[in-house]
Amino acid sequence: MAYLLDAWYVAAWSHEVGRSLLERVICERPILLFRQQNGEAVGMSNMCPHRFAPLNMGKLIGDTVQCGYHGLRFAVDGKCVLNPDGHGIIPPKMKVRAYPLVERYDMLWIWLGALDRADPAAIPDFSCNTADGFRRIGGMFEVKANYEIITDNLLDSTHAEFVHEGVLSSDAITMSALKTIQSESTIWANRWCPNGAPAPAWKAAFDNYYKPVDLWTYMRWDPPAHMLLDVGVAPVGASRADGIWLYGTDVLTPRDPCTTYYFWSFARNYRIDDRSVDEFWEKSIKVAFEQQDKGIVEAQQRMMGERSFDELGPVVIAADAPAVRARRTLRKLIENENIGSVRRSAAESPLELLRRRHHSRAPIESVV
Amino acid sequence: MAYLLDAWYVAAWSHEVGRSLLERVICERPILLFRQQNGEAVGMSNMCPHRFAPLNMGKLIGDTVQCGYHGLRFAVDGKCVLNPDGHGIIPPKMKVRAYPLVERYDMLWIWLGALDRADPAAIPDFSCNTADGFRRIGGMFEVKANYEIITDNLLDSTHAEFVHEGVLSSDAITMSALKTIQSESTIWANRWCPNGAPAPAWKAAFDNYYKPVDLWTYMRWDPPAHMLLDVGVAPVGASRADGIWLYGTDVLTPRDPCTTYYFWSFARNYRIDDRSVDEFWEKSIKVAFEQQDKGIVEAQQRMMGERSFDELGPVVIAADAPAVRARRTLRKLIENENIGSVRRSAAESPLELLRRRHHSRAPIESVV
Amino acid sequence: MAYLLDAWYVAAWSHEVGRSLLERVICERPILLFRQQNGEAVGMSNMCPHRFAPLNMGKLIGDTVQCGYHGLRFAVDGKCVLNPDGHGIIPPKMKVRAYPLVERYDMLWIWLGALDRADPAAIPDFSCNTADGFRRIGGMFEVKANYEIITDNLLDSTHAEFVHEGVLSSDAITMSALKTIQSESTIWANRWCPNGAPAPAWKAAFDNYYKPVDLWTYMRWDPPAHMLLDVGVAPVGASRADGIWLYGTDVLTPRDPCTTYYFWSFARNYRIDDRSVDEFWEKSIKVAFEQQDKGIVEAQQRMMGERSFDELGPVVIAADAPAVRARRTLRKLIENENIGSVRRSAAESPLELLRRRHHSRAPIESVV
Repeated sequence: MAYLLDAWYVAAWSHEVGRSLLERVICERPILLFRQQNGEAVGMSNMCPHRFAPLNMGKLIGDTVQCGYHGLRFAVDGKCVLNPDGHGIIPPKMKVRAYPLVERYDMLWIWLGALDRADPAAIPDFSCNTADGFRRIGGMFEVKANYEIITDNLLDSTHAEFVHEGVLSSDAITMSALKTIQSESTIWANRWCPNGAPAPAWKAAFDNYYKPVDLWTYMRWDPPAHMLLDVGVAPVGASRADGIWLYGTDVLTPRDPCTTYYFWSFARNYRIDDRSVDEFWEKSIKVAFEQQDKGIVEAQQRMMGERSFDELGPVVIAADAPAVRARRTLRKLIENENIGSVRRSAAESPLELLRRRHHSRAPIESVV
Repeated sequence: MAYLLDAWYVAAWSHEVGRSLLERVICERPILLFRQQNGEAVGMSNMCPHRFAPLNMGKLIGDTVQCGYHGLRFAVDGKCVLNPDGHGIIPPKMKVRAYPLVERYDMLWIWLGALDRADPAAIPDFSCNTADGFRRIGGMFEVKANYEIITDNLLDSTHAEFVHEGVLSSDAITMSALKTIQSESTIWANRWCPNGAPAPAWKAAFDNYYKPVDLWTYMRWDPPAHMLLDVGVAPVGASRADGIWLYGTDVLTPRDPCTTYYFWSFARNYRIDDRSVDEFWEKSIKVAFEQQDKGIVEAQQRMMGERSFDELGPVVIAADAPAVRARRTLRKLIENENIGSVRRSAAESPLELLRRRHHSRAPIESVV
Repeated sequence: MAYLLDAWYVAAWSHEVGRSLLERVICERPILLFRQQNGEAVGMSNMCPHRFAPLNMGKLIGDTVQCGYHGLRFAVDGKCVLNPDGHGIIPPKMKVRAYPLVERYDMLWIWLGALDRADPAAIPDFSCNTADGFRRIGGMFEVKANYEIITDNLLDSTHAEFVHEGVLSSDAITMSALKTIQSESTIWANRWCPNGAPAPAWKAAFDNYYKPVDLWTYMRWDPPAHMLLDVGVAPVGASRADGIWLYGTDVLTPRDPCTTYYFWSFARNYRIDDRSVDEFWEKSIKVAFEQQDKGIVEAQQRMMGERSFDELGPVVIAADAPAVRARRTLRKLIENENIGSVRRSAAESPLELLRRRHHSRAPIESVV
């Protein structure tokens, strides 16, 4: 499967990584995560170049990783620094790939693409996870489904009425007008739902919200699958400042074509010291995400089997507009990345340079 | 794998289908079964055309099926009749395939092929399941084996002596003469076994059959894999009317190349009010079918792996005659269906019509 | 996958095979093992040629195997000797392949290749398993990894320091000089480690070996994957005769590309009547082989997935010399076998014989 490689993927929540060796698989690449003695997090290939043992079966010796099979040691830049065997000669090719890793918003962001394009400024804003005045709960779970069909799920909040019946359902969402906005590669799927019934989860949390409310659910998407939800309720006709809301982090990291790491958090701006609200949302999320959403998208994946989404010819409805845009935007980025990569390898070939000198007016696309 | 599509397959026993949503997979097609409020059974595709969620995860609203993902509702003819989102516009392509379904002999028969050839008269006679004067027990179980190797098993009753030793075994069957009869696409595998020892199951049921009996086992096969067994015992030299017998329904519905729904029943003409006889046969069948036959055909399938039966070059013996005929008959029907389908699509093409006008003497087979 | 077929594979330890039917799968071929009434062991195909049922689901009748499906009986030479059905006609093709089988060193050696090249003299010497003056423990376990990556493991004893830390580890091994010797297709990987610390397992067994010792670990490899270990300790500067040692049998039989039967034994020349030493080694082996080695090679196999070892481009170090040689030697033998087999089939073709008569100077390799 083609993944977008020039992208920051969340490899882990900050608290998941410490002085032990953590294994993740991101876009089918084996990844090793750990922290140096100074606390800085490191991401590198988890496959020893000698005999392909997973490095996380070894151990940390200071800031080096010792393979658990034959004791080769690798520094944080991926270079082999010790071969305990014989004369200790280290072949030049004995190194693992080290990946750029940035710690931001309590998350570890890894870059799988070309080093010269690894710009941390491209990481989308998830500052709600570390902002003052918010109380956050969160976690990660694995879903046996392709990440794009989970994106579809998240970009269409009308599923709440059916999938999350009795938890997050509200027909005010389904009946509201959907506004799809795109700015460069960022897409918003916004629903403003005035004077409607709040979802049961909101009701349960607040007695005074049993009556109709103004309700909003705004979802922001950045490629490849990074979503930020702004969802809240306010008294009918009142301003947002009079209401309560939370920011949902929904970041999807593909493990392989049919498995996804789902990093989520809820950061709320109300009753931030009340642990019973934490518990309430943790319980609701467990039902809504880990049972209901997971159940439906995994069933969808089973129905699709090994066939691709496009091959199956989905029939789209109005509510799919943001998801369709997201799929197209991502497809285009992946295509451009492949064209760029062909261009680059072409540019590196002397024969091609010659060809281009003589045919400089030929459209570059013809190279592909 | 190529299945015969112009055929009635048993989708379920009548009692299995009610006002809840039942999922089956028939010839690799996802099927949804339920009953309308008036009791009429319905069979349709179980895959929502919008996002491919299995419709059985939704619910019945009157006689419509509501998808559990985004609430699209489908009528029994497969048309989408409600889109809860936004302006409620329903795209013309938003429909699922509804399959002809006939309830007969306490079974639900589904037609996967061309609508204009769905003639219920083609359903073979299994009236023993609903006939007066018979007591029936039955059920369904899944076998992890291709349906044709289960057909092989059922069309050769000599396996009883070895597979069902101590339950249904009788060397009278093995030593009897086999008569294979074919009339159009119906095949009989008949064994008349005079003056032999009855199988232990018959002995156990009737003290007076410890002595030699005349024994018969007649199996009727109709494509794709619908078998009716007529098996019984009578005093030596007496007429059939003096004996006791039962009709066995053995109908196989392929789920996929390696999984089969096995619908079975036993309808007997003796001690029809004696529940202990029910229990005796239920227990014997559990051993004979669900342990012994299932065990051997699943082991056979494991040995075959992904290789086809023909590819492995089976060495045939005389007892295989009916099974060989059944395989050939089914193969021919599937080939004809494919030729017909090529002919039909050819006929629908204006270019092909033109070609055929100019080459009308060309053998039609050349189209393939 | 290509296996070396002209080779003796260990199918079982002698004690594993008796008067019941044992199923093994060797180089993806289904194998049936049992003993005749006179005690002689037999190896034949486990797949009935009639309907492909595994013969081990049947039973022994004297020295014949009766298939559990339709009762066909096969003699030890693979010929069908009884068809219980009808007139009992036995088709000429109704036979299973019987394999040459030799019982030696308490092991059953099977030959999968051409009959005329099945020379028992080619079985490597594992007489330590039956020699006087030694006490042996042993067993077999299955590993979910390709047999060649287990060979790699066994031919490089430096893994002991890391994989078997606290059990068989000794940095004396890692620091010792490796001597790789090849004579025809036999390879030795020898390490003489003078004046070093013995591994914890040796220490635990002998109080007096807490001090430094002279240590040796000599591994002999014969294709396809038959290894004999000679490992021991002696007082520093003393002769081998003053020390203690054991011979390890490490014979690998591929089941399929990703599963291996690992036949092992340890035959020691000290305290041979002391059962507590048996128990000590059995416990150590359980940890070292079934947990540590199995754990690392199965993890390595998971990392490799369906990619081949060569395709992944391993970076080699000095300690890999014997393993690299073993891989090359085996590869060459398999290639020669394939060339030979093409030559033979060519030779059997009259057209080819004609061609060769007229082009007798053409290099035979051109046939391939």
